[in-house]
Amino acid sequence: MVGGGQLARMTHEAGIPLGIRFKLLSDTPQDSAAQVVNDVVIGDYRDLETLRAFARGCDVITFDHEHVPTEHLRALEADGVRVRPGPDALVHAQDKGVMRARLDAIGVPCPRHRIVSDPGDVAAFAAELAEGEGAGEGEGAGEGDGRTDGFPVVLKTVRGGYDGKGVWVVDSAEEAAEPFRAGVPVLAEEKVDFVRELAANVVRSPHGQAVAYPVVESQQVDGVCDTVIAPAPGLDEELALKAEQLALTIAKELGVVGHLAVELFETRDGRILVNELAMRPHNSGHWTQDGSITSQFANHVRAVLDLPLGDPRPRARWTVMANVLGGDYPDMYSAYLHCMARDPQLKIHMYGKDVKPGRKVGHVNTYGDDLDDVLERARHAAGYLRGTITE
Amino acid sequence: MVGGGQLARMTHEAGIPLGIRFKLLSDTPQDSAAQVVNDVVIGDYRDLETLRAFARGCDVITFDHEHVPTEHLRALEADGVRVRPGPDALVHAQDKGVMRARLDAIGVPCPRHRIVSDPGDVAAFAAELAEGEGAGEGEGAGEGDGRTDGFPVVLKTVRGGYDGKGVWVVDSAEEAAEPFRAGVPVLAEEKVDFVRELAANVVRSPHGQAVAYPVVESQQVDGVCDTVIAPAPGLDEELALKAEQLALTIAKELGVVGHLAVELFETRDGRILVNELAMRPHNSGHWTQDGSITSQFANHVRAVLDLPLGDPRPRARWTVMANVLGGDYPDMYSAYLHCMARDPQLKIHMYGKDVKPGRKVGHVNTYGDDLDDVLERARHAAGYLRGTITE
Repeated sequence: MVGGGQLARMTHEAGIPLGIRFKLLSDTPQDSAAQVVNDVVIGDYRDLETLRAFARGCDVITFDHEHVPTEHLRALEADGVRVRPGPDALVHAQDKGVMRARLDAIGVPCPRHRIVSDPGDVAAFAAELAEGEGAGEGEGAGEGDGRTDGFPVVLKTVRGGYDGKGVWVVDSAEEAAEPFRAGVPVLAEEKVDFVRELAANVVRSPHGQAVAYPVVESQQVDGVCDTVIAPAPGLDEELALKAEQLALTIAKELGVVGHLAVELFETRDGRILVNELAMRPHNSGHWTQDGSITSQFANHVRAVLDLPLGDPRPRARWTVMANVLGGDYPDMYSAYLHCMARDPQLKIHMYGKDVKPGRKVGHVNTYGDDLDDVLERARHAAGYLRGTITE
Repeated sequence: MVGGGQLARMTHEAGIPLGIRFKLLSDTPQDSAAQVVNDVVIGDYRDLETLRAFARGCDVITFDHEHVPTEHLRALEADGVRVRPGPDALVHAQDKGVMRARLDAIGVPCPRHRIVSDPGDVAAFAAELAEGEGAGEGEGAGEGDGRTDGFPVVLKTVRGGYDGKGVWVVDSAEEAAEPFRAGVPVLAEEKVDFVRELAANVVRSPHGQAVAYPVVESQQVDGVCDTVIAPAPGLDEELALKAEQLALTIAKELGVVGHLAVELFETRDGRILVNELAMRPHNSGHWTQDGSITSQFANHVRAVLDLPLGDPRPRARWTVMANVLGGDYPDMYSAYLHCMARDPQLKIHMYGKDVKPGRKVGHVNTYGDDLDDVLERARHAAGYLRGTITE
């Protein structure tokens, strides 16, 4: 696996029972996964020769993140290395411009969008949004917050953004200068009037077998995923099925191998629009570690190795995942004493990262029959581990 | 953790989510756990200086096996090292003579037994068994298989035996020469007329908190654990409670820290007698990885670190564990294809060991509402992975 973050850490954990010899390419020996894997190579994933040397000891290569340059992945494939997901699929998770164009082509509903080059383009895009359906591709929600000038508009660098980084919401063309300073292409999107965010997680193998996890609700705070509820409460059954089918279609059409997370907006008028794609285990699937028969990590490993996939069905009526952000506790031990004593059913997943304010350092999972109880337990534990709740 | 076997491998797996920095003392880099742990020291656990150097990087030491010499553990404790379980507890899992004497002293029912020095002692012990209750300590089943000479008698070396090694069942004093050849003390026990074998698994922390897992049925083939059914089918509720209380009593009286497995005989007349003790995660508790809220491995880690213990209750009505012994497949990949495709709910746990005939190389867990189905799925998968079932 290329990349030493928590996704690699948890993928290794899931691979141990399968007897997988897991090899890691990590930036530093202190990275989350590098702490717990035996066979670690320290190196720069942006360097092709480093990737080539790493790949020589592997049956198949997969990824903790989508930042490996697409051309390097193509070079590895040309060398005969099995890269899963391959560059032709992965580029859709790397480049939001490529992703939007492809989803348009296969008829997947997206927010209205356009590649823009300067603030003038943004103003023109906003004006078209204000006029209704004419604003480029996509089939957006078409409803604003009462404003008639098309703003606010969402601007995203097509590469490199995550967790709210590389994303701007601007209220006017004058505010739109910042995104263009980096000199990379910028995608403008309508700000969707959504009820909530959903995620449809599927896993697909090279053989074309695919499984779909229940559609979940993902609650963001300050652009960062805070809580995931599985399954999404009160979600219309037809809409849930449509979301699963959408994700399976995307996985098939884009040739995804491994885990695919499709982040969705549920609009006020009962439609779903694709927000983002991720082709790797994803925060919206962490609940599966304790909430489903086969976790996203185990199924990602199975898919990448072209093994039959495991059952994605839930083991409990409700499972809630709450992220733990870095806060006041540099040492978790005393917080563990409280959380474990308060809730013996709590599942803690920490990443071994140094605690920095706002950094994702772990998550907790809870499950049970009563959603209010399951939510309260997850939120209490996450808040206590962060230090924002004391009792 | 001292010892690089599969128990250390699975303990590491369970420690990853807690952010534990796991350090391993392993005989070779090829050992089961050494393949998957980052911080591995290769060394001989029988050498005190090796243990001392290893311990310097650890907050607490625990064990994959019970073979570390008791005097070394005492020396480490004298150095100020936290050893859990400590030598005063662990000696009861290391020395069957010490164990029997202590269990007698605290009133725990055991098979009738006596330390013997030569075949003549064995004959005398058998004669006393034949006469009834007079044969030394213990309160045995008191029922034979129709024979009246007290034979067969079970002979065990007091140290070093496992999985049927170091154990002999002799039909006469003439057959009893072999066990005495090694020059170590030998324990003679009546051969209990049991209905089945049970195991009571408990975990105890230094604070004295303890949790009990449901009592399981353990089915042996050729002296090696083959299948574990959780909970033990049809077990009388009072007897189950008695077994749990017995294990909790032993854990408390012996000062156990961590996981304690109490292997039991259920006698034809409805009593339970203690067969063996193990103070570490145990084969009879492997079902907890997928069948209980908190696994034996996670709870062992929590106990050793003096953290509050997790909920031991089952998540499914029935869970079955079946051991995978080495057989005809040196490479498991093709067997995985069959097993995973046949049963997407199957949980496979392989140890990364070279396959040798008869060697435990992994286990599978299945769970569900229908015991026959759960048993069939586990046995089929274990048999297929071994190569004794083809279809």
